[in-house]
Amino acid sequence: MPHLLKPVSPRRPPSLSDRDAKAPGSLPRGDALKEALAHELERLTALQAVFYADGRRALLVVLQGRDASGKDGTIRTVFGACNPQGCQVTSFKAPTPTELAHDYLWRVHQAIPPRGMIGIFNRSHYEDVLVVRVRNLVPAATWKKRYDQINAFERHLTENGVTILKFCLHISKDEQREQFLERLTDPTKNWKFRAGDLDDRALWNDYTAAYRDALKKCSTPWAPWYLVPGDNATARNYMVTRVINETLQEMDLAYPRAPKEVLALAEKLRK
Amino acid sequence: MPHLLKPVSPRRPPSLSDRDAKAPGSLPRGDALKEALAHELERLTALQAVFYADGRRALLVVLQGRDASGKDGTIRTVFGACNPQGCQVTSFKAPTPTELAHDYLWRVHQAIPPRGMIGIFNRSHYEDVLVVRVRNLVPAATWKKRYDQINAFERHLTENGVTILKFCLHISKDEQREQFLERLTDPTKNWKFRAGDLDDRALWNDYTAAYRDALKKCSTPWAPWYLVPGDNATARNYMVTRVINETLQEMDLAYPRAPKEVLALAEKLRK
Repeated sequence: MPHLLKPVSPRRPPSLSDRDAKAPGSLPRGDALKEALAHELERLTALQAVFYADGRRALLVVLQGRDASGKDGTIRTVFGACNPQGCQVTSFKAPTPTELAHDYLWRVHQAIPPRGMIGIFNRSHYEDVLVVRVRNLVPAATWKKRYDQINAFERHLTENGVTILKFCLHISKDEQREQFLERLTDPTKNWKFRAGDLDDRALWNDYTAAYRDALKKCSTPWAPWYLVPGDNATARNYMVTRVINETLQEMDLAYPRAPKEVLALAEKLRK
Repeated sequence: MPHLLKPVSPRRPPSLSDRDAKAPGSLPRGDALKEALAHELERLTALQAVFYADGRRALLVVLQGRDASGKDGTIRTVFGACNPQGCQVTSFKAPTPTELAHDYLWRVHQAIPPRGMIGIFNRSHYEDVLVVRVRNLVPAATWKKRYDQINAFERHLTENGVTILKFCLHISKDEQREQFLERLTDPTKNWKFRAGDLDDRALWNDYTAAYRDALKKCSTPWAPWYLVPGDNATARNYMVTRVINETLQEMDLAYPRAPKEVLALAEKLRK
């Protein structure tokens, strides 16, 4: 099918250049793109309803990306199409002292969605090989071991009923500036801006290297990474929704039927 | 303003008759009601966005009601209008052994939303004076003490940043039969039917008495109960959304402004 993102190939990892942030030319534009997104969102609403009722698997959606790359907007639009009862969003901030007293996957494991649910991670355990690496929060020998640890953890999850999709929302440096300026000039968006965002922007290339490694080393057959061009929000939402829908579609979901003796209760009720 | 539900008055508690399940005659009907609901849902989307950004209070919405009274549908429609990142739904089931080893409010306290968030309880600590009472799961002397305990707990929460709204979704006995029959005959709804639902239906009057006491004893100035006529789903959703919107409106919410020195960073970015 056209316009369907492919998982990152570890053998040909993306460069994460500004060009990777542009929507692919094959995608519809303007109103046609909006209509395509609306159609995918309707599909998601229907698929999530049966996914929830089916209750045999959990879906974990990991959203990573630099500041202003569209994580919040993706959650609002894409998962806004889901029944809130079947969704749980976890935003991972700087770890608390209690969390730091545990291994870095401890808090992550607690937030894994139960079967029937879609769990959305706004940032994730990947920060432990991104900000932690770029800002030297642990020795290099420590974070270097984490790629394998993460792969093993994610493999464990998928073998135990959790389907994992990881989206790296990728924006260009120019687009980030535009987004930051909007946050600073629009009074309803001021609250989203943190002064520290500029420090991370200054480390752009270091983050690029860290993201590249995370994508390359952790795009596995059981928990693939998708690189999502993020400069156009509608295209981004369309591409993310599309991958989720195809994944749910392949699950062969079904509404559980009640056993005969339960169905027979209808007669009793009609009396 | 017209059509706005009033809190349950402890001095004139509702009888919870079948008549209480009918939408008030003053409410618009048909398409006019659908439009009124759509308008309130749009209002909720806007109010929740600023509530989340404002981040000074939490909102706890308790949904109670018999089987098939519309708790799930209310969550889907009303909170479907909210950003999933600002909402968390907790469905309280029969307590686990670990939960039973604690006092009955222990698991409830853990699920209280943090500031900025709307927490939705699908069933709640009120089950500890409803099913627990009707089915004699604890001695009468135990559940009788709980009304005061719950009021004290809820008072503590409101004094510490949590606004509480409690909705009792009330359907007639006939409407429940219709809903049960639909679940039994529509294969996509079978999964929502539990054979035990009929046992609770057989105890209809006992539940009525238990609900009446819960509404009467626990509709407080700080955590009011609203009795929501539930036989018409659109009217129900409209009335619930309306109360939430008026509550949020009164909070005098505002988008936090960034301090001058942060706003000045825009110049640095433009260079």
